[in-house]
Amino acid sequence: RYRVTEVSSLSPAFVVMNFDQEGNVTSFEKKKTELCQELRLQARDLRFQHSTSLIARNNCIILRMESLKAIVTPQSLLVLDFRGLGLERWLVLELAPQLASQSHSLPFEFRALEVILQHKINTLQAQLNDVEPVMLDTLESLLDPKSLSADRSKLHVLLQNSKSLSELETDIKVFKDTLLKILDEEEIIEELCLTKWTDPRVFEESSLGIDHAEEMELLLDNYYMQAEELGNKTRELKGLIDDSESVIFINLDSHRNVMMRLSLQLSMGSFSLSLFGLIGVAFGMNLESSFEEDPRIFWLVTGFMFLGSGMIWRRLLSFLGRHLEPSVPPLIPQVWKRNLKASDYKTGVR
Amino acid sequence: RYRVTEVSSLSPAFVVMNFDQEGNVTSFEKKKTELCQELRLQARDLRFQHSTSLIARNNCIILRMESLKAIVTPQSLLVLDFRGLGLERWLVLELAPQLASQSHSLPFEFRALEVILQHKINTLQAQLNDVEPVMLDTLESLLDPKSLSADRSKLHVLLQNSKSLSELETDIKVFKDTLLKILDEEEIIEELCLTKWTDPRVFEESSLGIDHAEEMELLLDNYYMQAEELGNKTRELKGLIDDSESVIFINLDSHRNVMMRLSLQLSMGSFSLSLFGLIGVAFGMNLESSFEEDPRIFWLVTGFMFLGSGMIWRRLLSFLGRHLEPSVPPLIPQVWKRNLKASDYKTGVR
Amino acid sequence: RYRVTEVSSLSPAFVVMNFDQEGNVTSFEKKKTELCQELRLQARDLRFQHSTSLIARNNCIILRMESLKAIVTPQSLLVLDFRGLGLERWLVLELAPQLASQSHSLPFEFRALEVILQHKINTLQAQLNDVEPVMLDTLESLLDPKSLSADRSKLHVLLQNSKSLSELETDIKVFKDTLLKILDEEEIIEELCLTKWTDPRVFEESSLGIDHAEEMELLLDNYYMQAEELGNKTRELKGLIDDSESVIFINLDSHRNVMMRLSLQLSMGSFSLSLFGLIGVAFGMNLESSFEEDPRIFWLVTGFMFLGSGMIWRRLLSFLGRHLEPSVPPLIPQVWKRNLKASDYKTGVR
Amino acid sequence: RYRVTEVSSLSPAFVVMNFDQEGNVTSFEKKKTELCQELRLQARDLRFQHSTSLIARNNCIILRMESLKAIVTPQSLLVLDFRGLGLERWLVLELAPQLASQSHSLPFEFRALEVILQHKINTLQAQLNDVEPVMLDTLESLLDPKSLSADRSKLHVLLQNSKSLSELETDIKVFKDTLLKILDEEEIIEELCLTKWTDPRVFEESSLGIDHAEEMELLLDNYYMQAEELGNKTRELKGLIDDSESVIFINLDSHRNVMMRLSLQLSMGSFSLSLFGLIGVAFGMNLESSFEEDPRIFWLVTGFMFLGSGMIWRRLLSFLGRHLEPSVPPLIPQVWKRNLKASDYKTGVR
Amino acid sequence: RYRVTEVSSLSPAFVVMNFDQEGNVTSFEKKKTELCQELRLQARDLRFQHSTSLIARNNCIILRMESLKAIVTPQSLLVLDFRGLGLERWLVLELAPQLASQSHSLPFEFRALEVILQHKINTLQAQLNDVEPVMLDTLESLLDPKSLSADRSKLHVLLQNSKSLSELETDIKVFKDTLLKILDEEEIIEELCLTKWTDPRVFEESSLGIDHAEEMELLLDNYYMQAEELGNKTRELKGLIDDSESVIFINLDSHRNVMMRLSLQLSMGSFSLSLFGLIGVAFGMNLESSFEEDPRIFWLVTGFMFLGSGMIWRRLLSFLGRHLEPSVPPLIPQVWKRNLKASDYKTGVR
Repeated sequence: RYRVTEVSSLSPAFVVMNFDQEGNVTSFEKKKTELCQELRLQARDLRFQHSTSLIARNNCIILRMESLKAIVTPQSLLVLDFRGLGLERWLVLELAPQLASQSHSLPFEFRALEVILQHKINTLQAQLNDVEPVMLDTLESLLDPKSLSADRSKLHVLLQNSKSLSELETDIKVFKDTLLKILDEEEIIEELCLTKWTDPRVFEESSLGIDHAEEMELLLDNYYMQAEELGNKTRELKGLIDDSESVIFINLDSHRNVMMRLSLQLSMGSFSLSLFGLIGVAFGMNLESSFEEDPRIFWLVTGFMFLGSGMIWRRLLSFLGRHLEPSVPPLIPQVWKRNLKASDYKTGVR
Repeated sequence: RYRVTEVSSLSPAFVVMNFDQEGNVTSFEKKKTELCQELRLQARDLRFQHSTSLIARNNCIILRMESLKAIVTPQSLLVLDFRGLGLERWLVLELAPQLASQSHSLPFEFRALEVILQHKINTLQAQLNDVEPVMLDTLESLLDPKSLSADRSKLHVLLQNSKSLSELETDIKVFKDTLLKILDEEEIIEELCLTKWTDPRVFEESSLGIDHAEEMELLLDNYYMQAEELGNKTRELKGLIDDSESVIFINLDSHRNVMMRLSLQLSMGSFSLSLFGLIGVAFGMNLESSFEEDPRIFWLVTGFMFLGSGMIWRRLLSFLGRHLEPSVPPLIPQVWKRNLKASDYKTGVR
Repeated sequence: RYRVTEVSSLSPAFVVMNFDQEGNVTSFEKKKTELCQELRLQARDLRFQHSTSLIARNNCIILRMESLKAIVTPQSLLVLDFRGLGLERWLVLELAPQLASQSHSLPFEFRALEVILQHKINTLQAQLNDVEPVMLDTLESLLDPKSLSADRSKLHVLLQNSKSLSELETDIKVFKDTLLKILDEEEIIEELCLTKWTDPRVFEESSLGIDHAEEMELLLDNYYMQAEELGNKTRELKGLIDDSESVIFINLDSHRNVMMRLSLQLSMGSFSLSLFGLIGVAFGMNLESSFEEDPRIFWLVTGFMFLGSGMIWRRLLSFLGRHLEPSVPPLIPQVWKRNLKASDYKTGVR
Repeated sequence: RYRVTEVSSLSPAFVVMNFDQEGNVTSFEKKKTELCQELRLQARDLRFQHSTSLIARNNCIILRMESLKAIVTPQSLLVLDFRGLGLERWLVLELAPQLASQSHSLPFEFRALEVILQHKINTLQAQLNDVEPVMLDTLESLLDPKSLSADRSKLHVLLQNSKSLSELETDIKVFKDTLLKILDEEEIIEELCLTKWTDPRVFEESSLGIDHAEEMELLLDNYYMQAEELGNKTRELKGLIDDSESVIFINLDSHRNVMMRLSLQLSMGSFSLSLFGLIGVAFGMNLESSFEEDPRIFWLVTGFMFLGSGMIWRRLLSFLGRHLEPSVPPLIPQVWKRNLKASDYKTGVR
Repeated sequence: RYRVTEVSSLSPAFVVMNFDQEGNVTSFEKKKTELCQELRLQARDLRFQHSTSLIARNNCIILRMESLKAIVTPQSLLVLDFRGLGLERWLVLELAPQLASQSHSLPFEFRALEVILQHKINTLQAQLNDVEPVMLDTLESLLDPKSLSADRSKLHVLLQNSKSLSELETDIKVFKDTLLKILDEEEIIEELCLTKWTDPRVFEESSLGIDHAEEMELLLDNYYMQAEELGNKTRELKGLIDDSESVIFINLDSHRNVMMRLSLQLSMGSFSLSLFGLIGVAFGMNLESSFEEDPRIFWLVTGFMFLGSGMIWRRLLSFLGRHLEPSVPPLIPQVWKRNLKASDYKTGVR
């Protein structure tokens, strides 16, 4: 006996905010061991090892949603270690009134669960809302066909958002898995209906058709489906990033090909000039060509140089045009058309 | 009591279009609370939180298919908030006659469900039909082997369509999941057969083998499979986009390689000209070379310059040809052939 | 009564080919309503809405495999709307003898199902056989290391085949899903054993261990596994396309790098020539350099120009060689070796 | 009898470290056959064929976690072949005290399992902690927008880490599968509760609600979820590598495009100089142009050459600017905006 | 009766190798029909249609593992059509002794199954061992950072190995599916325990806890897990190929960028030389510049040309350096750091 109290005096303490059914809020500090004794829980139940959990233990619902740790009893909601999480505003201004005022016909634990799960969904939705517009803007500016190269700072923003989306996807998946695990086992759903087991009147009603377990399943299923919709949206966004990246690559490649053709056309011009310039160089040599004295020769050779370069360039350009254009066009559209027709069989489906 | 009416006067109202079994259509406005009281539903049942849902509550089927919200009772179909959705035409010209005239041997709720699910499938199919030809056209023009670079506006159309396909895929998945959830639980199928529980004659028949639940399963399964076919088609289209993008990349890369070889060949020509041009430059110097006076030297050197450039160019070109052609051809086809033979074991499967 | 006949006179008619147990083949036209009455089916059962279906209704098996629609009764096989599908040859020359001659100990519906499912598998196999060799040939020629650029018409063939493979994959998946749905429900398998329910002698035997349902499961499972093997083959081919595309990309990139190095080497040569050519240009100026009269100077400068260019070029080339060769080789193989050893732990598995 | 001893004298021996409930540690060598006889196990049970296994046999838990092989009995934990694995420190300094001191209310086998599973999780976590910072650093330096080319040694580190992540992913998957297999079968969980079957007092309690099997399920589920979280983290890291690689590619491509435009602009300059240089070359020919004597002509032609090159260059540059900028900008943002609006429907979800 | 013998005389024959419990091996030829009669099997049971199958029929186990076809009876193992498969060595030197000498306490069918399944696993492992080192070598040489371009013959080897891995993956999957199908149905496992149903003594023991079915499940599960490990290894290798290909691409792209920068730097040099060379060309014109006679002018202009080119080149190079280096570095590391911290939350998991 002595030992237990000693240990408890060393045991960690929780800062607890207590919400009761009438909307009264009290806040106090309590040692973990005392809390366990009071609620008849085991120390192990309050370890909150996993980032997301929702379990029923000895007529209490113990849940953790990332930073929010809470215990729901049939009479009150205890939020643990709420400080420093930026939750105070929400706790006082939203959670308390919602718990108290709701003209809900269902018992307290339903209201408490609904408020917390809705808060979780809202948080996930807010995260998605943070990422989505930034990401769409970034993609739009990266996809801008005018830009020859991708803005490196935008790429970093994109990578950041892509990382955030992955983390959000994991969060949603973990939340969904937590709910699904409960929805798959009727027994756990029954345990979550705290009032049903404490209030004999409710228990009787239950057997008359107004079943709490069914209501609990509806409630959890509702949040499961909301998480599913968020997950679908996230997946679509990730798909959009992938598709956009492909288009960015094609864009960059296209730009490069266009520049390469221009470059090639210029090279052809330079080559023509070099070729005919060689004539000029030849006549520039200090060697006797016997044409030195005839003034018409100067214009003849000069004209030949310029016109010759021009003509050779033109021929090279038209050669380039023909070279890049393959000779199989008649075949291809036809084959493709057959595919289009093949996809018409859908009409026969009715 | 006073309170309830007060609340109800503030409660939101639905604009309802009512279709009865004889094809009569009436339209009226009704407060949500009144509607609930009339159909003995709970307010929560008419929240329509999810974009797609189909549930049975207290002998009513409550469903939402994106914008279309409806309640099916054994006697009538109520379409809620139908205005501004572009559904009026369909409601009046198609839904009403189909509900009334159908020489269906099955009760009203079957007809109502069939009409609404068919409408959903038709909407999905219409969306696919909108996207598919545009996408195939876009892909075809992007795949055009003549084009050196990808048309940037086409790329945007492609991205748009790819996004639409992803959204359509999600819609189909959500629709399929909604139906699958019902098909997996016999109990819900039973609940959807409204007439079976209200008409004692039908209930008796049911036990004699003409089972409504089985018919309901067939009906839902039919639309599930239609959605599955749409999903398959969508998946194939997305696969086609991916494959086409690869081919576009290979196309652009090929063009680039061809241009690069041309460019390299020109560089070789320019180099040859520069090299032999240097001789001309040398003789152009104001330095005495002692050849100045011999007129044959001019032609000799000029000829050497031009012929020399030509010969060096030719050697460089043939060097390039050899350089790009590896020396391992005899090995490779042989190895590949072995694979071809390995794939023949299929014939032994019979 | 009057009404029914009137409707039936308007109702669509099937062109039916009837195969009985003795191998007799008759062909006639029959209205859908009459056929339904005869077989005691409902009109809905003969709608053939899905491209692949296999169901048992009122002691008939109704099936559709793409274009082939058939009804199996305990005594005969009816093939509906067989014209214009290119099936006539198969129906007369293969199906009829197989149905009649088979020394099968099992009743007629087994023979009929076997023949039709085998036909489906053969069709799928034929489609795969069409695509596979063309695709392997196309890939082989695209992978040809000699080719600097991908042949655009080959790329189109590849895309075509890839599309065909996707469609084939969907077909196989739909076929497998249809069989799996039946294999998962013992009840449906029982229904497919038509003779068991019509022939009391067989029914008795069934309870003595010679169970038709088990035989039916084996039959369906056999075709399921054949479809699975086709699906595996198709998946492998799609994987081969993906892998080959990567290799094509690496090939094209390699070619480009090789050409780029050649181009860079030539640029270095041209630069050297330009640099030393500038000396020649300088001496070519009409400015007095005081060297004009010394004939040795001509050879000196000319020699300097050519030798200088050559030397500078050589230095640039060796600089390029060093520049492209990083200085970290000792580190890398070692790290990789550690991986090789790590993969040795397999030997401990025994 | 003689034979058995002979065989046993040849049979392999284990070096065993024995931990009892009081924290006493003894170490000894024992032949495999003797150990089997003692614990009444079969030789086959101690083959440890798979890298990860956890089974219950004859009131012993036999487990292997990669290199750690152990047998848990209701009274002691035997660690087999512990030498040369670097585990000695952990065995003596951590495992022994944890087994002895724990003020756990649950029997010994729970403590033993918890210590070993926690060790496995810690090992996996340590491997992840090894890889993660190195990988993030490597990615960060590879993503450095300043770098024109990827550092080849960093790429090797990345590949190494990617390989390690894959192996870690497999390890986590195998660990999770091992636990899941047990969690899926209640029977095996029961068998793992050794004390329940040996201590009649515990067995009685079990039927009074303090169920060991439930505690065992909680314990295993806890480690399953920890492994799941590690798996999620690993998957996110692999996704980050993929996303980063795409960004690296876009970065490299962008750099190339920028360089290509610069190169193209220089080519335009060179071309302009060549073109107007040709005039100079023409006047440099030893041909009579009749302008030789007029000093103004020199300046006129020289000025024309320089100004002309400059002007042509400028026109080419502005042409390039226009050429790379497409003329469809007004259309595209509009279409994209529609998508943005389409994504607003989320607000209607609630 | 007459007919049957006639058919049997035409029926195909098997070359059979028979292994009995004592290790005696006999080899003979037997007609399929006779074999069926002897073992009381149906002809259909010996069709061996699928590449991998393992079924129990009428107290025989009939199995096929690719080329190996075998029948296990309670007394003997029959290997069919063993010739020409390269199995003779294994059959005589390994299978026979293993079947006979094993001091196994379990009946013959266990030994036979174990030997054959182990042979299958060994074959798969051998295939993996063939592919793995070649592939790692090929990847290592392709990843060699010194190589500017990928060796085309190595790429073919890589593609080959990738194809082999895909086929191996399919083989492993088919083998696993075959075992899983049995492990999922207790009934089939029971049928595989041949001796249990033929030997009444064993049957009795079975009910006393020494259960053959449980042993059979362990045996099959063991080989399932070995196949799973092989599958994991194969998947890792395929992932390694994908990762390596990305690194190869980045390597090639990096090389290209480095070469492009060198090329651009050379272009800048050439441009500078061209620009200042134009001055030389101008002075080389046969036009009077009035500087002709001053010897200092020659050195001035020549010096100006060389120094000017050098200076312009230097400025261009420093411009290039600045141009490729973006001005956003302070922002980016900071953002990334936040991510590093975000990943620290893991520490809170405990």
